[in-house]
Amino acid sequence: MSGSADQARRLALVGLSRIVDPGHRGVHQAVQDHGAFEVWEALRRGAVCEPVSPELRAGASLRAEGYDPAADLARLSRFGARLVCPGDVEWPAARLFWPQKPRLEAPPLALYVHGAHRLDEVVERSVAVVGARAATAYGAYVAGDLSTALSDRGVAVISGGAYGIDAAAHRGALASTRTPTIAVLACGVDVAYPRGHDRLLRQIASTGLVVSELPPGSSPTRGRFLVRNRLIAALSLGTVVVEAALRSGSLATLERARLLSRHPMVVPGPVTSAMSAGCHAQLRHDPPAVCVTRVEEILDTVGAIGDDAAAALRGPVGVRDGLSDTVRLVLDAVPVRTGIGEASIARAAGVSSLVVQQVLPPLHVHGLVERTQDGWRLTALGAGRPVPKQHQDAGQAPGPAA
Amino acid sequence: MSGSADQARRLALVGLSRIVDPGHRGVHQAVQDHGAFEVWEALRRGAVCEPVSPELRAGASLRAEGYDPAADLARLSRFGARLVCPGDVEWPAARLFWPQKPRLEAPPLALYVHGAHRLDEVVERSVAVVGARAATAYGAYVAGDLSTALSDRGVAVISGGAYGIDAAAHRGALASTRTPTIAVLACGVDVAYPRGHDRLLRQIASTGLVVSELPPGSSPTRGRFLVRNRLIAALSLGTVVVEAALRSGSLATLERARLLSRHPMVVPGPVTSAMSAGCHAQLRHDPPAVCVTRVEEILDTVGAIGDDAAAALRGPVGVRDGLSDTVRLVLDAVPVRTGIGEASIARAAGVSSLVVQQVLPPLHVHGLVERTQDGWRLTALGAGRPVPKQHQDAGQAPGPAA
Repeated sequence: MSGSADQARRLALVGLSRIVDPGHRGVHQAVQDHGAFEVWEALRRGAVCEPVSPELRAGASLRAEGYDPAADLARLSRFGARLVCPGDVEWPAARLFWPQKPRLEAPPLALYVHGAHRLDEVVERSVAVVGARAATAYGAYVAGDLSTALSDRGVAVISGGAYGIDAAAHRGALASTRTPTIAVLACGVDVAYPRGHDRLLRQIASTGLVVSELPPGSSPTRGRFLVRNRLIAALSLGTVVVEAALRSGSLATLERARLLSRHPMVVPGPVTSAMSAGCHAQLRHDPPAVCVTRVEEILDTVGAIGDDAAAALRGPVGVRDGLSDTVRLVLDAVPVRTGIGEASIARAAGVSSLVVQQVLPPLHVHGLVERTQDGWRLTALGAGRPVPKQHQDAGQAPGPAA
Repeated sequence: MSGSADQARRLALVGLSRIVDPGHRGVHQAVQDHGAFEVWEALRRGAVCEPVSPELRAGASLRAEGYDPAADLARLSRFGARLVCPGDVEWPAARLFWPQKPRLEAPPLALYVHGAHRLDEVVERSVAVVGARAATAYGAYVAGDLSTALSDRGVAVISGGAYGIDAAAHRGALASTRTPTIAVLACGVDVAYPRGHDRLLRQIASTGLVVSELPPGSSPTRGRFLVRNRLIAALSLGTVVVEAALRSGSLATLERARLLSRHPMVVPGPVTSAMSAGCHAQLRHDPPAVCVTRVEEILDTVGAIGDDAAAALRGPVGVRDGLSDTVRLVLDAVPVRTGIGEASIARAAGVSSLVVQQVLPPLHVHGLVERTQDGWRLTALGAGRPVPKQHQDAGQAPGPAA
């Protein structure tokens, strides 16, 4: 494609994202069949463009009146954000491979991205952490804690930038400086919605990425939230719902994750909390969502996607993954801070002292546990915390460039 | 069998339960092959008795020295309890149908029972509710609440009489006077263990049943607790673990429930609570335990055992069970006390007002909802509470005689 043809195509994609809402199957199919430029030219004039329906065409041509996509691109550039289109190196093609299924909206035509990282690289090892706006203190704590731990292990946390669980997830990820966090919005990347997250969204853009399918200045609508949810599910290896009432939008994200063959995960909570009822219902769903309570269980779950993903999560995680159940039991019984004796470890692990005595020396050799004057405790590597440089080698690579 | 032969067999079963601990496969097999009287006569003399091992025989004959089973029977009778043997009308034969599986101990040889109800009738519709001794306030609340609700619906709550979840389950069941609760002990039915449950166990015996495989005066041991757990699992349609640490005895009960093809169920809790970690691990088990958060979900789960069980749970439960998802959504949105309008119900149910307008009249005809001046609310039947007499008919029979 020549430079000017490519520029025409980019302008057409911006124009299409302005005059039709994301996720329309007809428009996406037309772009596949005829090319973005041709579809844009047809729709803005109200011309026939199969398989786009006449109703949609009428609305689209109305919205196109007097509109110039170049103005949107200029506005985007002034804001410091960029357009990412299919074919660009940064386009996360592997994640936007799209099955045709009922109830699943079409893939994005193009993405607006704000932030210094390469989108394709950050989403390579990423998990969505989403949930209720009306989160409880419990849910916010767990979302934050899991997100810090994910980020500490080089896994990018993707969420929706909303109040409640989303905010706790982003903030938890920001607390670990290791891995960028991604906010996927249902409005323009330059729109601070919700208003109270103005500062949070700017913080995410400055250290991570803010992503949207909608052109700059777009306002969120209920429909846009639902369609946005499929993008959160698609970009990540799996979706973790931390709290959700029975009819929650986060469950729509989980359903999209299923449709996209991503891992659906939920965090349980008190059965007395309406905010966990949606999560529990998903555990009774057929097929059920995976119950996750610790970061290791999230990594175990998403790590099962092909060899690439499993290999990508090497290092501290890989080391623990390779352990037998018994060894892991013992390792889990070793405390982080103050060392304890072998008898105490045996009691906590529910194994015999003999087993503990056999298991600890090799764990010591591999740098997972260390002796203190009080007994054994975990090393940073054993605890899964960021590992000081001198401990790292090719087999313990950190996550994506942060 | 003649009266005296039967009496000799009963004395032999008492004798065997005194000189060998419950669950021994060899002893059980020998009783099947040779008869209880013959095995008792052989073991107390230290004679060969295939397939009982020589080691067991040696210990058994030592314990039999100078011992007369008639003394145990007399002591049992003075205490007001009774012996229930295979072949007795009260023997819960349907529940003691026993698969031969590794890790599953042999079925009981005989049972000691204290309480006025027929054991076979009470266990017909029963669920085990068990869990951690070191229960949290959350676990105790949920165990009590579920057990009251089960008992209210005519389902007997079986538990182990221990501190923590067991006690909360029994007390919850006692709070509903509708259905007896059963304590299955790892000691004699006349032994108050734990000591602090002296009054609770007497209360259970006076309104429900206390059951054991061990002769009067027997003390509990760690081994006896584990073997007892299989009896709790066997006697019930399914086992609900409310709280359990990762290596908890309640999980052994759940494992026995699986081996016996009973329904394994767990109640989730905060992931921040070590007392729920065992329950959550069971949700990640292969096959997973069923996640239950409400009494309806327990009934749904155990109701799936054959047509008998489903039919047995008629009445308020059956009425709700037969409803479509939409109707149940609406019904769940109708409040118990103060009536609310159709628009509010629609909002709460997440369905349109039109659906609510279509669904409420038939629910009204069936007596599940009623009109107040403020709008619609649930009737006692709709709320699943004990139904006043005039509402009951053959199709809404109460549970077993209480």
